[in-house]
Amino acid sequence: MTPILSKQAAADLVVAARIRRGLSWAKLAEEIDAPVVWATAALLGQHPMTKEQATRVCALLELDASVVESLQLQPSRGTDPAPMADPTIYRFTEALAVYGPALKALIHEEFGDGIMSAINFRVDISRRPDPEGDRVVVTFDGKFLDYKW
Amino acid sequence: MTPILSKQAAADLVVAARIRRGLSWAKLAEEIDAPVVWATAALLGQHPMTKEQATRVCALLELDASVVESLQLQPSRGTDPAPMADPTIYRFTEALAVYGPALKALIHEEFGDGIMSAINFRVDISRRPDPEGDRVVVTFDGKFLDYKW
Amino acid sequence: MTPILSKQAAADLVVAARIRRGLSWAKLAEEIDAPVVWATAALLGQHPMTKEQATRVCALLELDASVVESLQLQPSRGTDPAPMADPTIYRFTEALAVYGPALKALIHEEFGDGIMSAINFRVDISRRPDPEGDRVVVTFDGKFLDYKW
Amino acid sequence: MTPILSKQAAADLVVAARIRRGLSWAKLAEEIDAPVVWATAALLGQHPMTKEQATRVCALLELDASVVESLQLQPSRGTDPAPMADPTIYRFTEALAVYGPALKALIHEEFGDGIMSAINFRVDISRRPDPEGDRVVVTFDGKFLDYKW
Amino acid sequence: MTPILSKQAAADLVVAARIRRGLSWAKLAEEIDAPVVWATAALLGQHPMTKEQATRVCALLELDASVVESLQLQPSRGTDPAPMADPTIYRFTEALAVYGPALKALIHEEFGDGIMSAINFRVDISRRPDPEGDRVVVTFDGKFLDYKW
Amino acid sequence: MTPILSKQAAADLVVAARIRRGLSWAKLAEEIDAPVVWATAALLGQHPMTKEQATRVCALLELDASVVESLQLQPSRGTDPAPMADPTIYRFTEALAVYGPALKALIHEEFGDGIMSAINFRVDISRRPDPEGDRVVVTFDGKFLDYKW
Amino acid sequence: MTPILSKQAAADLVVAARIRRGLSWAKLAEEIDAPVVWATAALLGQHPMTKEQATRVCALLELDASVVESLQLQPSRGTDPAPMADPTIYRFTEALAVYGPALKALIHEEFGDGIMSAINFRVDISRRPDPEGDRVVVTFDGKFLDYKW
Amino acid sequence: MTPILSKQAAADLVVAARIRRGLSWAKLAEEIDAPVVWATAALLGQHPMTKEQATRVCALLELDASVVESLQLQPSRGTDPAPMADPTIYRFTEALAVYGPALKALIHEEFGDGIMSAINFRVDISRRPDPEGDRVVVTFDGKFLDYKW
Amino acid sequence: MTPILSKQAAADLVVAARIRRGLSWAKLAEEIDAPVVWATAALLGQHPMTKEQATRVCALLELDASVVESLQLQPSRGTDPAPMADPTIYRFTEALAVYGPALKALIHEEFGDGIMSAINFRVDISRRPDPEGDRVVVTFDGKFLDYKW
Amino acid sequence: MTPILSKQAAADLVVAARIRRGLSWAKLAEEIDAPVVWATAALLGQHPMTKEQATRVCALLELDASVVESLQLQPSRGTDPAPMADPTIYRFTEALAVYGPALKALIHEEFGDGIMSAINFRVDISRRPDPEGDRVVVTFDGKFLDYKW
Repeated sequence: MTPILSKQAAADLVVAARIRRGLSWAKLAEEIDAPVVWATAALLGQHPMTKEQATRVCALLELDASVVESLQLQPSRGTDPAPMADPTIYRFTEALAVYGPALKALIHEEFGDGIMSAINFRVDISRRPDPEGDRVVVTFDGKFLDYKW
Repeated sequence: MTPILSKQAAADLVVAARIRRGLSWAKLAEEIDAPVVWATAALLGQHPMTKEQATRVCALLELDASVVESLQLQPSRGTDPAPMADPTIYRFTEALAVYGPALKALIHEEFGDGIMSAINFRVDISRRPDPEGDRVVVTFDGKFLDYKW
Repeated sequence: MTPILSKQAAADLVVAARIRRGLSWAKLAEEIDAPVVWATAALLGQHPMTKEQATRVCALLELDASVVESLQLQPSRGTDPAPMADPTIYRFTEALAVYGPALKALIHEEFGDGIMSAINFRVDISRRPDPEGDRVVVTFDGKFLDYKW
Repeated sequence: MTPILSKQAAADLVVAARIRRGLSWAKLAEEIDAPVVWATAALLGQHPMTKEQATRVCALLELDASVVESLQLQPSRGTDPAPMADPTIYRFTEALAVYGPALKALIHEEFGDGIMSAINFRVDISRRPDPEGDRVVVTFDGKFLDYKW
Repeated sequence: MTPILSKQAAADLVVAARIRRGLSWAKLAEEIDAPVVWATAALLGQHPMTKEQATRVCALLELDASVVESLQLQPSRGTDPAPMADPTIYRFTEALAVYGPALKALIHEEFGDGIMSAINFRVDISRRPDPEGDRVVVTFDGKFLDYKW
Repeated sequence: MTPILSKQAAADLVVAARIRRGLSWAKLAEEIDAPVVWATAALLGQHPMTKEQATRVCALLELDASVVESLQLQPSRGTDPAPMADPTIYRFTEALAVYGPALKALIHEEFGDGIMSAINFRVDISRRPDPEGDRVVVTFDGKFLDYKW
Repeated sequence: MTPILSKQAAADLVVAARIRRGLSWAKLAEEIDAPVVWATAALLGQHPMTKEQATRVCALLELDASVVESLQLQPSRGTDPAPMADPTIYRFTEALAVYGPALKALIHEEFGDGIMSAINFRVDISRRPDPEGDRVVVTFDGKFLDYKW
Repeated sequence: MTPILSKQAAADLVVAARIRRGLSWAKLAEEIDAPVVWATAALLGQHPMTKEQATRVCALLELDASVVESLQLQPSRGTDPAPMADPTIYRFTEALAVYGPALKALIHEEFGDGIMSAINFRVDISRRPDPEGDRVVVTFDGKFLDYKW
Repeated sequence: MTPILSKQAAADLVVAARIRRGLSWAKLAEEIDAPVVWATAALLGQHPMTKEQATRVCALLELDASVVESLQLQPSRGTDPAPMADPTIYRFTEALAVYGPALKALIHEEFGDGIMSAINFRVDISRRPDPEGDRVVVTFDGKFLDYKW
Repeated sequence: MTPILSKQAAADLVVAARIRRGLSWAKLAEEIDAPVVWATAALLGQHPMTKEQATRVCALLELDASVVESLQLQPSRGTDPAPMADPTIYRFTEALAVYGPALKALIHEEFGDGIMSAINFRVDISRRPDPEGDRVVVTFDGKFLDYKW
């Protein structure tokens, strides 16, 4: 008996295969007919895939059964502090430090006491052309959950 | 000579006046003709207001000159750890812990090596009706900045 | 204009009045016809009360309008690290450190990928007589939320 | 002489065998005639098993003697910070941050000065059907211990 | 209505009165017929006193009713990090860092799986004459609690 | 040339051999004619042993020369945070958080300005029978050192 | 006797006076004939001023003798974590996280084993016009100190 | 399939080859016709190289294809806390702790509300001869970005 | 009854009086016939003074009885993290980070297993003229304490 | 190509060889004609050695060329938190927490605004016989550097 390949080890192999075979994240997502942010997060270890999804994406990437098995594993979600400090990710954290209390105030004004779910939730990212420089547009879309006893 | 009223003290007075006079954040934003997330963040101490903006909003809130002065002050931006742990704000942090590395991967795939600016940046929040429960939709929209020597 | 009395200051006054007038938390909860854990948490600053609830409980406690106002305020939820280290609270934290991964495994086994909501949620506490020493029984009861895109 | 297989390594092998053989945590618990939360926690490394328990569960999982030995080891209990931040576990931590001081107040009101034991203690988890969505019900049940010199 | 004097503020007044009136901790403990470590800890804010104890000790110290009230308050137990780093206290922490795992191993060897209670617990301190320099002898004496489901 | 086996690796082998050969910590201590807490701490890596002690204990445990060498090494003393959070060890930490300032006050009252040495120091542990449940009695016994320039 | 006005309190008064009187940092620096970064840092509490400097700048700002006294005080240098997280300051920290090891490698290559002094040190800031957007140019200029026994 | 050699492992090999072959960082930068700070940072893992850059530098260093591949990888930027505490790097951190607030004040005075970009950014280092000891001159040069909604 | 003036408040008054009356630390130490480092530390709150010492130094500084009382108080020793990061203090910390393990190795080589006492301990500071720049010479002189059971 | 042996790995081999060959740190220092604290620190990885020093010391210790190479490497200086908590090292840290502010005050009084260099710096350790117990005497001797723009 060997342990299941860790989510991190599987993600490292996915990344290596993706680069060496010249496949985009979008192409991988398309292969399993899933939204691209969801698929990328799942391949990086944040969501469990179904057996079919894991099998198809590993076939495309020519990865073996140990990766197929690992991708189906229930993850322990989250990211270590070091990669969260990478500038591309940190800008989101900084935006929350600046706008978090305002978003909280406006959620309460519009919806009452409660939260935006991070579980019944989706994220989209797109490119918006702009003459002064194209823009990254990221949409967080979560069900409102009111504090309910 | 007295020090300028701190941004936090000014925000506390804005919050008190807003509640006692029954004014919404949206109404305050409208008064100064500014986007509602920007205006809320500014009133909570994260952006400097112009003299005109500060004067008009304090007139509406019946707040005195010390608040008008404070709202124009250049802030030191950011939020203490305790309020960042409030569940309504924490869900955004959690979403970043789950989706941050995926967003980074997709920004690099689409735009190359760089970041979404958090300075040339806007945030919008809206309510999207949904039969299974209305949704909070928050859009981060920042200019792409490529690593450029 | 004065700031609204902080939730902590209001809670300190509630605690003082409760002790001096010899009223139990259960009695306060009953006065506003609310579950006792909810009412206690609200009076300690973790939930906003309705105007009616705040008014009734302050009448009973003979507290003035500034407390009535504060109790209705939307809170920033959470507890500082120091009181979380108090032994009576720490035992719950310790239990999570011991049983948290097991609870996660069993939630996934029974419900699939998702969480117990901490928002659509209630907590009850009761005393269960036991010949070897009575027991504290605390029930966490939250809606299951499945990860749903 | 080789060191005893670590509790973590044993747990990784238990998890792998459990998944590959299609066995539920409930089935494993039943095999050793133990409560399911206790058994899951023990298999994940938080409690020592008896020789008989370890032998039976490893026979079912087809794991070798090194796992049998490890499962009997006295553990150093607790969980690292990273898995505690997983959303499924974090919701319990958040609930304590919101309700911890209220639970403390109510334990003191009902029982006097003391704590709920986390040692003379059991945890149960069950599913409660609900038309608005089934609920996760977790019960912490610990002996009251009064501060006693 | 004023808040109850905080435990820290009460302790500061006890310390001031004790020094100014030239009373030892032992004398204060004797006055309330309590063990000296318990009494000192209680006066420093770590245990609630009975009304009678608080009244008698405050009479001796000539402290007013606000201190009497505070000393009866249920405490949030624990000590901030700064005073824990004081050398006189730190030596105990260092001893635990050196001997903690050995004590755990020996508790398990002698008693089985469980802990020394810190609730059903007493501490004594005494001076033991020694020709090479007198010794501080501190005894921790807690009921063994076995892990019991 | 190979590095000396680390203290942790040696301790892991000692623990494995001790369990597999059915030897108690007390028996190991007796073999080297040393106090049991000292011997256990030394075998777990917190004290250097003499060559003779290391040789005799390894003979009994049937451990090879690399362990004999490691046990004589001067240690870097202390324990990582994770094992310090184990409940059996944590109760000592909690007791210090509750009684530390009182012990400091009483040491100063009895001895003057100074500390209990953690170097000229011994720890004993014993079981005290008690009809309400046997007790763990741990004695810290250190030379008083006065602040002396 | 009153304590000396703290450096922070003095800085708050300097900032208030500077804004209300419409004086630039450059103007204040010029008044005392000092480099602008040095003068700004000194007025914000990071360097002691001479009596003459403090007197002249307070005359210009119409601040009283308590500020003159405070500005001459030897500071405890450094900045709290919260203002260091402000985006305008954080970008420097981020640049060090990205380029720090490279700067270290190049200092050693060019100068040998040693450091750039932060004491025999000056900082300049200037604006460099650029058709694609003006640039902030900050120069750190410190004496090389070689590790020298 | 093997994972891509990590950036850290590639940097370790670059450092070893550079020393063993007696090549300076300046020489490596020259080989790929890039600024020396950029090239050093890239070789240490902070920037992705183009295929041509990676190929040329590895040819010079006689490193194999796995390093060529790794050097092209998109990095997760940043440096662990331990190397940031090295004295040669720490002096920059200390300078920011002393001058950070002053730089922020002067950026706002000269440019208005905004930041120096750390992305559209370059760093140069040079040696400036000085009779009292040569100086390390480091220039941070980033585009000003104004807060812009 | 008022609390005793805190050690920090007393130190702030000592510092103010010392500067305003133009007295050196050396002069204050001489007044009480004590070593200058000891006296400075005591006046800054790290050692209790005798009544005579406190009375004499306060007479010289023209400080009132509340300071005399505070200076005699048993301190809780230590320094907050912020002042420890001041460059003048930090250099000592850095030296320990570089030389600490070497000092430990050499203490063990020369003295055996034990420590330099920080209690039976004195510190001296002096200026040593040197043509290349005068030197700060700080001597730590503590009794060796061997680990002794 | 293999990476250079890390400083830590080289130090572990030096320590092993030193013990097995019965050589003192003093002997190793003498072999390379260097001060003993410097040599010990260098061998433990805190200073680069010259080729000649590394060659001679490795010849004496019978260590191979990989250690010779590693000892010449430019280090990243500093020590992890765990070994800094070892009691023999911690006493120095504690002494700084008690005397740091006093040393700062006295450096400023004697030398003006500046620091003791930790770069142009030496440390010596010696044994001073004393009838009450020999003493460890550690001297920090660093060039004074005045804050100089």
